[in-house]
Order: sequence, then structure tokens, then C-alpha cells
Amino acid sequence: MKLYVWNIAPNPRRVVIYLAEKGIEVPMEEVGIPGKPALDPAFLERAPYRRVPLLELDDGTLISEAMAICRYFEAQHPDPPLMGADALETARAEMWERMSEFEGLFAVAESFRNAKRSFAGRALPGIPGESAQIPELIERGRQRAVLYFDRLDARLGESRFLAGARFTTADITAYCTVDFARFIEMDAADGRPHLGRWQAEVAARPSIRGTA
Amino acid sequence: MKLYVWNIAPNPRRVVIYLAEKGIEVPMEEVGIPGKPALDPAFLERAPYRRVPLLELDDGTLISEAMAICRYFEAQHPDPPLMGADALETARAEMWERMSEFEGLFAVAESFRNAKRSFAGRALPGIPGESAQIPELIERGRQRAVLYFDRLDARLGESRFLAGARFTTADITAYCTVDFARFIEMDAADGRPHLGRWQAEVAARPSIRGTA
Repeated sequence: MKLYVWNIAPNPRRVVIYLAEKGIEVPMEEVGIPGKPALDPAFLERAPYRRVPLLELDDGTLISEAMAICRYFEAQHPDPPLMGADALETARAEMWERMSEFEGLFAVAESFRNAKRSFAGRALPGIPGESAQIPELIERGRQRAVLYFDRLDARLGESRFLAGARFTTADITAYCTVDFARFIEMDAADGRPHLGRWQAEVAARPSIRGTA
Repeated sequence: MKLYVWNIAPNPRRVVIYLAEKGIEVPMEEVGIPGKPALDPAFLERAPYRRVPLLELDDGTLISEAMAICRYFEAQHPDPPLMGADALETARAEMWERMSEFEGLFAVAESFRNAKRSFAGRALPGIPGESAQIPELIERGRQRAVLYFDRLDARLGESRFLAGARFTTADITAYCTVDFARFIEMDAADGRPHLGRWQAEVAARPSIRGTA
């Protein structure tokens, strides 16, 4: 078994944090080109969906998508539960994980990839060939991120973690999003005290300190 | 308990099909404005994330996101399994469900909402206030959809359903995406025989015929 990762990207980091929380050790291979914001072409040829993280099982089966990889391990190592322990916690973890990915991580990534000169012609991830940057998406991504951070702050004003009393994959995706937002010069905690309280608490976890 | 739906939209339909497959009956309320492509403002005021589907539990708890709602029921009614029965099937269902949502449904919706005059000023779902249409996204959404349909066809050439031998939520999201693509004049099965074989097989299921 091998997990392909790219240490500067937020998506593989979600799985690395998850595995550290679970205490599961998986061999990892770094597939970023050193010093360049791009993946190794030899990896891209082998990776059908041109993305990291990617989990390769011993029989060659490939699992793409960070949360699909986490679910593979969650089914085999249910304790401690990181994707919900009962129906309501499971639903809340899934809801906040997806909202964090769609409204938060995608929005920040959209602003980032359409803004940076080093991503010219590569505005979309996972696409073979060129994809042009669209300048309107730089500001639109930021506006969507503001709305997401406001929703996050409101939720964290009523709950210790996103799904409730327990840390889950929803917190992992949200934390990686907040951290990634620094790359577009956004401080999500600024003016959002509940988000700031939660960010400091999550940042102190050994799983996060080990991947900072 | 009540499920808020909008009968012309693909996202609530995913949950309606899921419930029909499970044989679970849930009271539903239609919140679209008859004859207009918009949600009832009274509903939007009560719905914190301005989206359907939305599940309201008896204690007032609100669950947003189609797959979070499905997971709430899956935890309480595991049979028949629609989100995977073992670790590998669970991972594959999650992987293909997410790829279908991110690469397929989002791409078709992006093209649709940026093209239609009736969505002028409402290019993004779930956003309060105006969001301008961006003409470049009409064609970009179509190109992303083509890539997704090609990947779907390749997968369905090696497997009866997306996660393997069993119908799962991945097939539900993929089917709703393929069906929704007709609204942007795309026939996903054209030139993609495996996708066409699967589409015909899924369309014959009672859960689909009941929501067509």
C-alpha cells in the first residue's frame, strides 16, 4: 500500500492529518516537483484522475478523493471515530465536511489558482491540457470564502467542533481551508472570535503540529 | 421530520431516489415557486444555507447537503447498503460519488447557471444577494462535463455500477448529473456505449421511474 502526497497542497494534508489522528502508518511518496508548483509528470501518467492524494492498494487498486481514502481506513479502524459515531453526528460531520470542501476549500483554491502567475494555463486541477485563468474568479472566490468563514464562525459559536463535541474529518477539512487561505492573504480568524478559538485549539493537536 | 425539496432540481432528487431505493417514507414539502426557477423566499429565510434538499428533524435540527441527509438514514437503516458494505466498496462509492458531484454535477450546473437568462444575477447557488454570470464558464463547464462523461464511460466499461457489482449513491449522483445535462443540450450517452448501457439499466429502476 502507498499514499501519494504533495506536501505543499491542502488536499493530501487532509489525509495525512486523518492518519495521524488514527495512529495509522501508511508508506507515503512525495510526487511534487521540488521547488515548482507542479506534480511530477511520471506520476500524472500513472494517476488516472491527475490528482493527489491517491491511495494505491497492494493489488494495484487506486482510490482517489481525500474523503474516500479516509473512509477506506475508517471502515477498518473505527476507533476513535472521526466520521461520526451515531446517525446525527455522522450527518453533521458529512454536512460540515462537504460545506467546508465546496464552499471553503474550492473557493480559496479558485481564487488562488486564477490569481497566481505560476498557475497560468492550469487554473483547473485534474485536467489534461490547458485551462485558462479567469480573472473574475479571483475576487469571486474571495467573496465565497468570506461567506463560508462567517458560517463557520457562527457554527463554532454554538459548538466546540463542527459536528459537535467530537473532532471529525469536518474539522480537518475546515482547518486545512483556513490555513490554505493564508496563501491568498486571508486571515479567517480576523473579526471571527469563535473561529479563532477553534483554530487555536485545533492547531495544538499533535496531528496538526506534525504536518504544519 | 420533514424533507424540503424542489422537484425540478437535481440535488433534492438524489435524496428522493435514495429514499425510494431504501423504502423509507419521509414527509416532503415542495419549496420551489410554481412556474419560476426560484425557491420560495419564506423557505430561504428559514434555511440557513439557502439550499435544497434540507432535512428538518423533529427537534428542529437542520441537515443540509444531499449526501449528509442520505448518511443520516444509512446509519439507521443499513439494509440494503447504498453507500458500500465493506471498506473497498465504501471507498469506491465515496470516490465516484464525489467525482460525480465535483467534476460532473458542478460542471453541468456551472454551465447551466451561467448561460440561462432566468439565472441572471444568480449564477451561484446558496449565496445571498447578487452573483453575476461569467460567460467563460458556460463553455468551461461543458468541457469539464465532457471529461467527466469520458471517465464515467471508461469506468462503466469495466464495472456494472460505479462502485462495483452493487448500485450505490455514486450511481444516483451520476445518473442525476447525466439527466440534468439534457438541460444544457448534452447527451452524455452519445458515443459512450458503456455509459449508455448503464443509463438504460438505471433508468429502469422503480426509484428512478418514480422521480422522472
